[in-house]
Amino acid sequence: LPKIITLTTDFGLKDPYVAEMKATILSICPTAAIVDLTHEIDKFNVRMGAYMLASAVPYFPKGTIHVAVVDPDVGTERRPLLIQTKQGFFLGPDNGLLVLASEKQGVVVAREITKRKLMLPEVSSTFHGRDLFAPVAAHLATGLSPSKVGPEVKNLIKPVFAKIRRLGNELEGEVLYVDGFGNVITNVSNQEIADLHLGDTVALELHDCMLKLSIGKTYGETKLKQPLALIGSHGYLEISVNQGNAAELFKAKIGDKIRFTKP
Amino acid sequence: LPKIITLTTDFGLKDPYVAEMKATILSICPTAAIVDLTHEIDKFNVRMGAYMLASAVPYFPKGTIHVAVVDPDVGTERRPLLIQTKQGFFLGPDNGLLVLASEKQGVVVAREITKRKLMLPEVSSTFHGRDLFAPVAAHLATGLSPSKVGPEVKNLIKPVFAKIRRLGNELEGEVLYVDGFGNVITNVSNQEIADLHLGDTVALELHDCMLKLSIGKTYGETKLKQPLALIGSHGYLEISVNQGNAAELFKAKIGDKIRFTKP
Amino acid sequence: LPKIITLTTDFGLKDPYVAEMKATILSICPTAAIVDLTHEIDKFNVRMGAYMLASAVPYFPKGTIHVAVVDPDVGTERRPLLIQTKQGFFLGPDNGLLVLASEKQGVVVAREITKRKLMLPEVSSTFHGRDLFAPVAAHLATGLSPSKVGPEVKNLIKPVFAKIRRLGNELEGEVLYVDGFGNVITNVSNQEIADLHLGDTVALELHDCMLKLSIGKTYGETKLKQPLALIGSHGYLEISVNQGNAAELFKAKIGDKIRFTKP
Repeated sequence: LPKIITLTTDFGLKDPYVAEMKATILSICPTAAIVDLTHEIDKFNVRMGAYMLASAVPYFPKGTIHVAVVDPDVGTERRPLLIQTKQGFFLGPDNGLLVLASEKQGVVVAREITKRKLMLPEVSSTFHGRDLFAPVAAHLATGLSPSKVGPEVKNLIKPVFAKIRRLGNELEGEVLYVDGFGNVITNVSNQEIADLHLGDTVALELHDCMLKLSIGKTYGETKLKQPLALIGSHGYLEISVNQGNAAELFKAKIGDKIRFTKP
Repeated sequence: LPKIITLTTDFGLKDPYVAEMKATILSICPTAAIVDLTHEIDKFNVRMGAYMLASAVPYFPKGTIHVAVVDPDVGTERRPLLIQTKQGFFLGPDNGLLVLASEKQGVVVAREITKRKLMLPEVSSTFHGRDLFAPVAAHLATGLSPSKVGPEVKNLIKPVFAKIRRLGNELEGEVLYVDGFGNVITNVSNQEIADLHLGDTVALELHDCMLKLSIGKTYGETKLKQPLALIGSHGYLEISVNQGNAAELFKAKIGDKIRFTKP
Repeated sequence: LPKIITLTTDFGLKDPYVAEMKATILSICPTAAIVDLTHEIDKFNVRMGAYMLASAVPYFPKGTIHVAVVDPDVGTERRPLLIQTKQGFFLGPDNGLLVLASEKQGVVVAREITKRKLMLPEVSSTFHGRDLFAPVAAHLATGLSPSKVGPEVKNLIKPVFAKIRRLGNELEGEVLYVDGFGNVITNVSNQEIADLHLGDTVALELHDCMLKLSIGKTYGETKLKQPLALIGSHGYLEISVNQGNAAELFKAKIGDKIRFTKP
């Protein structure tokens, strides 16, 4: 069966960079089935990339290889990673991009990719997507043992967006993403909400605004143009407005802090 | 041989929704060849989706499975359909999205998709593309008999854009699509034009404007910057301007009514 | 092993034209692996298409078939070409689109595609991408001998951007492309720069501006926000600004003339 390799980047589809990654993969593993997850991550927006990846990976079959490149520090000391999980593999920079998706699947072991001969003969300092991550992913797809890519590493970078702070009865999270419908997706998971024992309402503070929202399951559970909180299909709490735009209403954007308390 | 599954949606390529549909398909049918028809349908614009689908499907080989999701009423009572034609299969909502393409190919039988176990374990009320249409398409690609998806249905929704009104020597149609060059594509087919016995000119009324146009075969048949009517490569009458922009000239947009008469 | 066919066009991804090309290919060669190089070439911008193609093709395996369609003169006398190189095949119009990429690989023979029965039954005058280039590429992928497509031709069109003018110690080139980071990519290759024996600085004239730049290898070799010249990863000299936007700074756009001299 063809091995699936997914690609998530901030390269866009105008420049031929994504095609160069695919060319590199197919040169090594001609039968790979390559799936674009998205290439429209906002430039250098690691948290948006992390969210997109975490959203989509549960739908892929076991053994899928995910390559993600949102990499503002390419060419510096930041480590190139291969993370093996209970469901598959993640390749990308050690900057938090892989953390939400890989932790969701259960991390088995993380390795720094150091084996030079698995990469392209010339590794540019600006395009590890093509020169390093794509070829290593393709070698994995052809059956390379993950242990051959380099040594096990600990202490992966865990950025602020991957650390919910809990202070007594309060959670401090942030906006991970605003989707095309204006839904404000936070980094607070359904598990963390459950741990707060909120019942069916939550109080939240966003900018200078205090809101008391009921926690629903579908957009239709509140009145037209009224806001509600709900656990989205990807397991994160989101703020929505029934047939309206929550991001506009609350002037929320990616990275904004949100505080959750029991009303 | 790999089965072809095409995808037509209004999801865009920024969000990972299209990738989630592909992940679902490949989880069930790992050898499917998935082809993006387009994901840039204007949000909820069923007639634009219907036109795009009808344009492109004639080029696909017999047996191709087409999944189309422009679905403003997802989560309501609207029926999810599988339409079997003489050339292939169409899956999508019963809102007219599939009507132009499937009638062009010759409908054999239409079914409502009801078989729960062919869908994803959890079917959200907002994303039938991933949870219902993608998995059923993938099961068809692996050889499932179409009769297993659910009962035969009649009286499919036929929206206004799929019903040309003929009143004596007049046709009333509308604008299906305005392409990137400003060509105004109508829902009037070459057959319907032939039935009017127009000869080589047509009179048409668009907004408050009366036009008498010659019916040509190529853009070059009229003078530079002059309008003409022609039967486009997809079999619909379109209004064009030789090296100009007909939509701008006539202020035409998707959904506008057009009346055709013999001059 | 599946044959790779790449597609480079100025069609965009909104209209279903790219899907129609893929449908045509898969109808003839169901096992082809189709890779989108890019479809976001600026409309009719042949030099931008030529650059994109030349950038990406070195990463594809030997035997890859590249179809490129930026074709302002479709429907006129311009010749449809198949160029066989030492590394693969190029199909596209004879307008210079294929010249940079095919010369980089070493041209073996160029042919005019004339064999009518290799094309679609109906060849429109506006869409040779679907009706002519896609089916011929697919036939090649199934094993057709290249000599069967038509007679050998000489004197391919070589547009201004493919001819560097050297006058003594001066080179006259032009801007091929401005990438998303504002890097100004010229048509002057590393070989041509080497032939000038410039040492480590170059003087260049762009609009009314005279610049003396050091020639570096990476963006980091100059101070923050300072310009430098470097040989990009695709072998062409580019003008960059360390963490800045060279195109904005120098008001450079595609097609602008640049003169290079020894300082």
